[in-house]
Amino acid sequence: MTLQEAITAIQPVDEACRWRAQARLDRLTKPVGSLGRLEELAARYVAMTGEEFPKLPRAAVFTFAADHGVTIEGVSAYPSAVTAQMVLNFLRGGAAVNVLAAHVGAEVWVVDIGVAHEFGSLPGLMARKVAHGTKNMLVEPAMTRDQALAALAVGIELAEWAVRDGIGLIGTGDMGIGNTTASSAITSVMTGRPVAEVTGRGTGVDDRALARKITVIDRALALHQPNPRDPVAALSTIGGLEIAGLAGLIVGAASHRVPVVLDGFIAGAAALIAVGLQPLCRDYLIASHLSVERGHQAALKTLALKPLFDLDLRLGEGTGACLGIHLVQAAVKILTQMATFDE
Amino acid sequence: MTLQEAITAIQPVDEACRWRAQARLDRLTKPVGSLGRLEELAARYVAMTGEEFPKLPRAAVFTFAADHGVTIEGVSAYPSAVTAQMVLNFLRGGAAVNVLAAHVGAEVWVVDIGVAHEFGSLPGLMARKVAHGTKNMLVEPAMTRDQALAALAVGIELAEWAVRDGIGLIGTGDMGIGNTTASSAITSVMTGRPVAEVTGRGTGVDDRALARKITVIDRALALHQPNPRDPVAALSTIGGLEIAGLAGLIVGAASHRVPVVLDGFIAGAAALIAVGLQPLCRDYLIASHLSVERGHQAALKTLALKPLFDLDLRLGEGTGACLGIHLVQAAVKILTQMATFDE
Repeated sequence: MTLQEAITAIQPVDEACRWRAQARLDRLTKPVGSLGRLEELAARYVAMTGEEFPKLPRAAVFTFAADHGVTIEGVSAYPSAVTAQMVLNFLRGGAAVNVLAAHVGAEVWVVDIGVAHEFGSLPGLMARKVAHGTKNMLVEPAMTRDQALAALAVGIELAEWAVRDGIGLIGTGDMGIGNTTASSAITSVMTGRPVAEVTGRGTGVDDRALARKITVIDRALALHQPNPRDPVAALSTIGGLEIAGLAGLIVGAASHRVPVVLDGFIAGAAALIAVGLQPLCRDYLIASHLSVERGHQAALKTLALKPLFDLDLRLGEGTGACLGIHLVQAAVKILTQMATFDE
Repeated sequence: MTLQEAITAIQPVDEACRWRAQARLDRLTKPVGSLGRLEELAARYVAMTGEEFPKLPRAAVFTFAADHGVTIEGVSAYPSAVTAQMVLNFLRGGAAVNVLAAHVGAEVWVVDIGVAHEFGSLPGLMARKVAHGTKNMLVEPAMTRDQALAALAVGIELAEWAVRDGIGLIGTGDMGIGNTTASSAITSVMTGRPVAEVTGRGTGVDDRALARKITVIDRALALHQPNPRDPVAALSTIGGLEIAGLAGLIVGAASHRVPVVLDGFIAGAAALIAVGLQPLCRDYLIASHLSVERGHQAALKTLALKPLFDLDLRLGEGTGACLGIHLVQAAVKILTQMATFDE
């Protein structure tokens, strides 16, 4: 499926299904509405999937890894090499996302969409490298338009693969030293907020590096003048390969009516691109948590999504998405496993 | 163990253990502090249990059920008979707490500590009835002092039983039509806040019934003049048998260094009593969620506990505690299953 085909295939969620789900929720053995947002989540899930009495979905978190040319400007507390090291950690099962995914019964699909390192053939790694990292957005476009489209296509392809494989619930994950810089740039463009308002400390830079990070993004935006009405252009000039992959994943999942649980700030930037491409995507998104990264709140506000929890997370990888997946599963079980008053 | 023995047995949590846990958390393959409150939770868990490298605890939710004489005043949207019906629903596995406990791998222990119904011998029901419900606090003390002490003793006994049985993590649950009235009365006394500020709609009463509920509690407090310095007296005059049982459960668990995950508003009232009896109890408590019931915030503030999440829940039964247990398990796994940078 091409990007255009996927965009065209996305249908509005099924409101009639949502109301039938709500009617069942109201007949369960509890005061009406007393399970609050779990009930809302169950009803949204049914509207997204069109399954009135859904079976428990098999879930997978997609952790897209890529490098960022802009790290040369000193915008991150860690060197680029950490991206590749963390990919190896994901494959060994030692990272936080592995632990939390196993805890909630989800799989982790690790995708090299643009790490600046040759892994060779590694069991468990999905090799979909579009480039060895992006270019430095401060001096040139991060990607060519073709690269951005190729990365979007990877996301769509993997969503389709997941659906064929029986995955019914997708979580987003990311790894990429420098990717909060790209995400802040995208968030600023897509929400219309000033860079300083949507830029935070990422992995933990100090005040001086934060000021530099803001300056770098401001200058990159002045150079490329990205237009929010052309999300692919914005993505290619200031984005990242993993962000493009996640945006494609969202579009692909929505085209198959598969709900997507967003992780944190990087997921928010990808969602802004996906919704920019096709506003209907928004209704297939579930915001797991509110990140410490300050631009996340602005992204979620523009997306009109309310996060399910706030545990001061700022790790990424898909860690928050795992916990969100657990709540979606809980909501589906409430809807389908509780007794009704008639029974 | 008597109440006095349990109170005396409670030790401060182990701060040295907490720091060693924090040192390990800082060496895990992630930026320092990037898992936010999950890390704080892991460190607190270690301080409570004194296990520096804890194994995953077996978890159980204790759902104490009891009736309330004050329901005759029209303070609830449901009749008292629903308490017994819901106990049967718990035993059949059809209630929300059953679904969510199974979802997180926790057991549900259902305790009849004061339901106004003769169940006879029912498989799965722990028969610990202290009385057939409380008396109407508006005209007489809800319990005698001996009854309150007996209900506290039930909680302590069950905590000890659980520990012997290998349970390492306890969740609180409750069922009792009318128990938000008793909990608001206790919360008002133990926090010093006016009744109107800590009284909500419970299962969903209308404005008129809410006003009546506040008047009933105000009059009961004027009649009994409960003293926050004598928590047993407060408990007996305006409390509930399930609240007393939960307070005993907390004291008993803390005396064995077993962490307790609080559910919502009723759990908060029980925690105020337990902490009133022994302030050290507080450090063994984990607040799962912030309830819709308005008095809960005041209770948590007095307890100096910050809830882990807010999903607009107001069901009780232990439903929020189940989701809290899942986060505690996640925190323990992060601490013990992630790779460190040394590795």
